[in-house]
Amino acid sequence: MGLVVQKYGGTSVGSAAKAKGDGIVVVVSAMAGETNRLFKLASELSDAPDARETDVLVATGEQVSAALLAIRLTALGFPCASFLAHQLKIATDSAHGRAKIKSIEADRLRAVLRDGKIAVVAGYQGVDPLGDVTTLGRGASDLTAVALAAALKADVCEIFTDVDGVYTADPNIVPTARKLDRISYDEMLEMAGLGAKVLQLRSVELARRFNVPLVVRSSFGDGVGTWVGQEDATMEDVLVSGVTLDQNQAKITIAGVEDRPGLAAKIFGPIADSGIIVDMIIQNASADGRTDMTFTVTRDDLKRAVELVKKIGTEVGISGIRHEDPVAKVSIVGLGMRSHAGVAAKMFRVLAEERINIEMITTSEIKVSVVVNSKYGELAMRALHDTFLGAGNGATETV
Amino acid sequence: MGLVVQKYGGTSVGSAAKAKGDGIVVVVSAMAGETNRLFKLASELSDAPDARETDVLVATGEQVSAALLAIRLTALGFPCASFLAHQLKIATDSAHGRAKIKSIEADRLRAVLRDGKIAVVAGYQGVDPLGDVTTLGRGASDLTAVALAAALKADVCEIFTDVDGVYTADPNIVPTARKLDRISYDEMLEMAGLGAKVLQLRSVELARRFNVPLVVRSSFGDGVGTWVGQEDATMEDVLVSGVTLDQNQAKITIAGVEDRPGLAAKIFGPIADSGIIVDMIIQNASADGRTDMTFTVTRDDLKRAVELVKKIGTEVGISGIRHEDPVAKVSIVGLGMRSHAGVAAKMFRVLAEERINIEMITTSEIKVSVVVNSKYGELAMRALHDTFLGAGNGATETV
Repeated sequence: MGLVVQKYGGTSVGSAAKAKGDGIVVVVSAMAGETNRLFKLASELSDAPDARETDVLVATGEQVSAALLAIRLTALGFPCASFLAHQLKIATDSAHGRAKIKSIEADRLRAVLRDGKIAVVAGYQGVDPLGDVTTLGRGASDLTAVALAAALKADVCEIFTDVDGVYTADPNIVPTARKLDRISYDEMLEMAGLGAKVLQLRSVELARRFNVPLVVRSSFGDGVGTWVGQEDATMEDVLVSGVTLDQNQAKITIAGVEDRPGLAAKIFGPIADSGIIVDMIIQNASADGRTDMTFTVTRDDLKRAVELVKKIGTEVGISGIRHEDPVAKVSIVGLGMRSHAGVAAKMFRVLAEERINIEMITTSEIKVSVVVNSKYGELAMRALHDTFLGAGNGATETV
Repeated sequence: MGLVVQKYGGTSVGSAAKAKGDGIVVVVSAMAGETNRLFKLASELSDAPDARETDVLVATGEQVSAALLAIRLTALGFPCASFLAHQLKIATDSAHGRAKIKSIEADRLRAVLRDGKIAVVAGYQGVDPLGDVTTLGRGASDLTAVALAAALKADVCEIFTDVDGVYTADPNIVPTARKLDRISYDEMLEMAGLGAKVLQLRSVELARRFNVPLVVRSSFGDGVGTWVGQEDATMEDVLVSGVTLDQNQAKITIAGVEDRPGLAAKIFGPIADSGIIVDMIIQNASADGRTDMTFTVTRDDLKRAVELVKKIGTEVGISGIRHEDPVAKVSIVGLGMRSHAGVAAKMFRVLAEERINIEMITTSEIKVSVVVNSKYGELAMRALHDTFLGAGNGATETV
């Protein structure tokens, strides 16, 4: 195997650097609990800790991991060297806490690899044009790994974690869930966006953009894991690759909105401006020139969103605001939906058989999501998994 | 007051930024115990942790302090920004763990100060020509503060610590010890080198070289502290400014060394090469072409030094090695010694009156040091302080 970039997370930093390759780059995140500890320190000193300084603080978590791993590898006789973002010029914008990587100067890494050393890189961090420390967002050490793999044109980027791959559903909820051997970027993107926590959404996006093959595998075993890459012809044979459940959603309904052009923009413009991400939006058929609008946000954003809507409501005139917290978003994802009709209809039938009311629906080319009452979330997930991916349903075997 | 550089140490980081000045730079060290905790983590992973990686690890202590202080100051309404070594280009050599500062680019700091912000700087760290993280040695956040004060041509560098200034002797041992209002660089240098822990030796050297006035003061009170600066005419009136005790010394005697040219070099060359600092050396008068050599090292280096001497001894021929651990080095320091004869003689008389045997003697222009049996160290210190600095002896009042 040629050049490998590996990423080890909080609980798995201790088992790093297993690969035998011509070149190994190991990206580490902070040790389990450390990032939370640092955020807590900051919140004890300020109600709203300065974002620039919080980045300086929390970036130490990965720095400690990188140094300790390099110390251990050296002691075990593996030549290696650790690197921080400023040493590799991992250039980002200045959006502290959620910075985006602009470029990486890989020359120094290449030189280290040529010398036969393992490069250990602190994940999650970058430097902005001023040279200030930035961080890329929670879970973004994956992103560092993918970006380095892209910059180095690595053969593969291995994400070591505490599970042995990507599953058809969360095995904690669906005991019959199975590990997938392969999955396309598009399916993985949908699943990551829909609540599957194994891979960070932005990392999959970046991997797809630069065509970096990802392998998700366990730090604690020798399994082959799950390969994430470009789709091939056989993949469309799979109707549904996974079922996801997101219980971190809340629903807001604005009743009696005047049904005229521009009002949706008036309502959702300020919400977007305040950084709140609205996931699903539906608008009922109009009656008497008035309509109801319903949309979902993450539970964290609910309070702010309701306050904003109240404010906007007094300007545009509405008859009321209701909200439901939490609600469950249940989704099925699969490339096969592109070419197979009737998948959504089958999904709705399964839910109807379980007497689960569907509150909202959205679809894309390769997924169908529904919002249901939170208490039916797990039941819905199991029923859908049984139908599309259960024993006797050979969907994944055809991959 | 114009531009002030302040340094806050482990136990006093919490009380930082008291000064009212046109510009304030605050240098912080790690919080109490943090550097030790990090060194311990490293030693758990390796018997001899890699020096480059250890620097990456321990530099996080100051980074955390800087970020937390900046978060707190911001929350209190003081505009500020933290800086790490790579942001200020605190350029050092590559001697990891004991790097020397070569230069500092102060432009960014000046811009921040012009904007009316407090600059918070992580002490103790630098970057080498490759951009790698270095550290300057234990206690070297003082050094960062002095170097920044020199680079910025600050009016004063205030070292905030857990004592309220420089004392005539350690008050824990000599209850009658008094705080000095002023002391010269040269005296402070001798006292720092002789065991006074209030200021780091290299920081005083750097302050003298760039003529940066230092003020040592308490983080916990409003006292004026002790001013350390260039000597003036009145200072020579003070015969003795301080008495110091260093109980961290050990003594090695090499018996029966052949008394011929080049042998001292043969013995002390390899010792110096191995990084062991030899403090005092005496050589007895020769008898029958053979002589005894006695020298002191720090207790930490004793074992290595004895092993080296044994090895050298088998080559050059000696009749035996003895060592004593610990021994006490007691010293008196004062500019007045330059112009007043008889200070050393008075010191020896005081010790003789206490029936304390002097084992070794060294002198410089402004200090006399003696090595005595460790158990008499504190007694010697008190007796000398009583004589030269005790109640009724108005030495310091003339400053």
